[in-house]
This record gives sequence, structure tokens and C-alpha cells, in this order.
Amino acid sequence: MVIDAWHTQVKQTDDLFNSLSDDQLFGEIAPGKNRGIYLLGHLTAVHDRMLPLLGFGDQRYPTLYKIFLESADKTVVDIPSAEDLRNYWKETNNLLSEHFSKLSATEWFERHNAVSETEFAKEPHRNKLNLVINRTNHLANHLGQLLLLKNKQ
Amino acid sequence: MVIDAWHTQVKQTDDLFNSLSDDQLFGEIAPGKNRGIYLLGHLTAVHDRMLPLLGFGDQRYPTLYKIFLESADKTVVDIPSAEDLRNYWKETNNLLSEHFSKLSATEWFERHNAVSETEFAKEPHRNKLNLVINRTNHLANHLGQLLLLKNKQ
Repeated sequence: MVIDAWHTQVKQTDDLFNSLSDDQLFGEIAPGKNRGIYLLGHLTAVHDRMLPLLGFGDQRYPTLYKIFLESADKTVVDIPSAEDLRNYWKETNNLLSEHFSKLSATEWFERHNAVSETEFAKEPHRNKLNLVINRTNHLANHLGQLLLLKNKQ
Repeated sequence: MVIDAWHTQVKQTDDLFNSLSDDQLFGEIAPGKNRGIYLLGHLTAVHDRMLPLLGFGDQRYPTLYKIFLESADKTVVDIPSAEDLRNYWKETNNLLSEHFSKLSATEWFERHNAVSETEFAKEPHRNKLNLVINRTNHLANHLGQLLLLKNKQ
């Protein structure tokens, strides 16, 4: 159910990105707020970082982290193109989806890599499944904002 | 973990509503989009409807449903006051929280009332826990939008 909810939010966001032109993507979700392109990079960076956190291997696009997580929108001039970001977004989610399908029920309840073994002994809910729950809500937060880009030039 | 995620999103939204003045609440999240007050009513109506869906009793504020779910923002002139809506919001979430704490693990995996017994036999994931997962994401969608009301008069 948790993984279904993840896939539902990813699909809705993916459909939305596909329906938006590059021009729309460079618009702000509200005056003075983040642009769609920044949120595309931000979500890709956060999902890319889920790979090492869930033990699925290294980040594929570590440079995105500095631009779209550590820096605010419009403070970094040199960002990847919309085309590249759209591709990174898809590749990252496809890769996660592949790894998700291979994980056993037991493995979902093992600790993720942002928590130490000592912490995990005390807080066993900080497992891989819980990380996906949190990231689903993070995605849902931004999806709600990105929907504001529709019907807006 | 699912219920924790629900409580986290409710708390974040509640903190946000508490931090917003009535004036801010009557502002639009983006030009031409929903007002904060509409989303407060909308979320309360959706959460209120969770009571019968989860078998916790009748809706407490059934009139909200027509105003904040079946009607678009700014199409109904006569809506409850901000003060009343703020109270309904809190009462509804407190009531849900009380019922959540009493539900056993087995009961969480029983069907919710938006699904028939026949459907549930085929789709056993349509249980009470899954309804909470979906409503958490619904809340997260709108929380992301409501955050845009901050630092805006």
C-alpha cells in the first residue's frame, strides 16, 4: 500500500511534468516563489539521494544536490537544461522502482542509511519503508504546488 | 509509521493555520487560485467524511461537504466564519486521532465503507489503513500550497 501510494504520486507528478511546456516549467508556482524547473531539479535530487539511503548504490546525479537542495531557486545561474532534468527525473524514478520491486518484506523493515545502528536499535520505525512514506509526502507537498503551474503561461 | 505520518502532516498544517492571520487565510495561494480559507474548509470536510468511512460514526459537519468539496472556491457566498472553521478543523482531527488510537492492528486491515464487501474480497488493500495513506497524501498536496500563504498579506 505504501509503495502503491509512492507510485501514484510519482505517476501524477510525471504526468504533470509531461503536460507542462518548458515555458510553463520556467514559471513560478506563485509570485516570488520557486519555479517549476527548480522543483523538478529538487525532486530529482531528493529521489536520487534515496538510492544510497536505501542501499541501492551511489547517487547518479550528485551535482543536483548542491544546486536544488542546498541552494535556493534563482541563486544558481548555471543549471542543467529542462530536457536533461526531465530525463534525470524519469531515470531516477525508474531506477528506484526497479529496486523497490526486488526488496523483500523483511528488507523493507531494515534500517535506512541515514540512521545509525545504535539509533535504529532504539527507533526501529526508522526503516526503509518509513523513508518511502516520508518521501511520498515530500513529493505530495510539491506536487500540490506544481499543479498551480497548469493553465498558466 | 502510517499513522505517525498522518499526525506529522496534520501537525504541520495545524501549526501553519495557527501562524496565519485571518487576513492571510483569505488570501489566494496564487493569483486566481483557491483561497486559504477554502482549503481550510476543504480539508476539514474531507477529514470529517473520514469518520463514517472508517466506521467512527456520522459526519459532524455535513454542510461543509457541499460548500468546500462539491463547489469551487468563491462560488458560495455564505461560508462559515474563519473562527468557526478553525475550530471545526481542530475538533475533527482530535476526534480522528482519538479513534485511531483505539483501533487494533487487525481492524486497520478491515475494509473501509467506501468499498463494498464484494469489491473488498477482490481488492483487500482497500482497507482502513490505506484510506489514511491516501488522505495523508491529499493533505500533503494542500499543505504544500498553503505554505505559499506565508510571508504574504
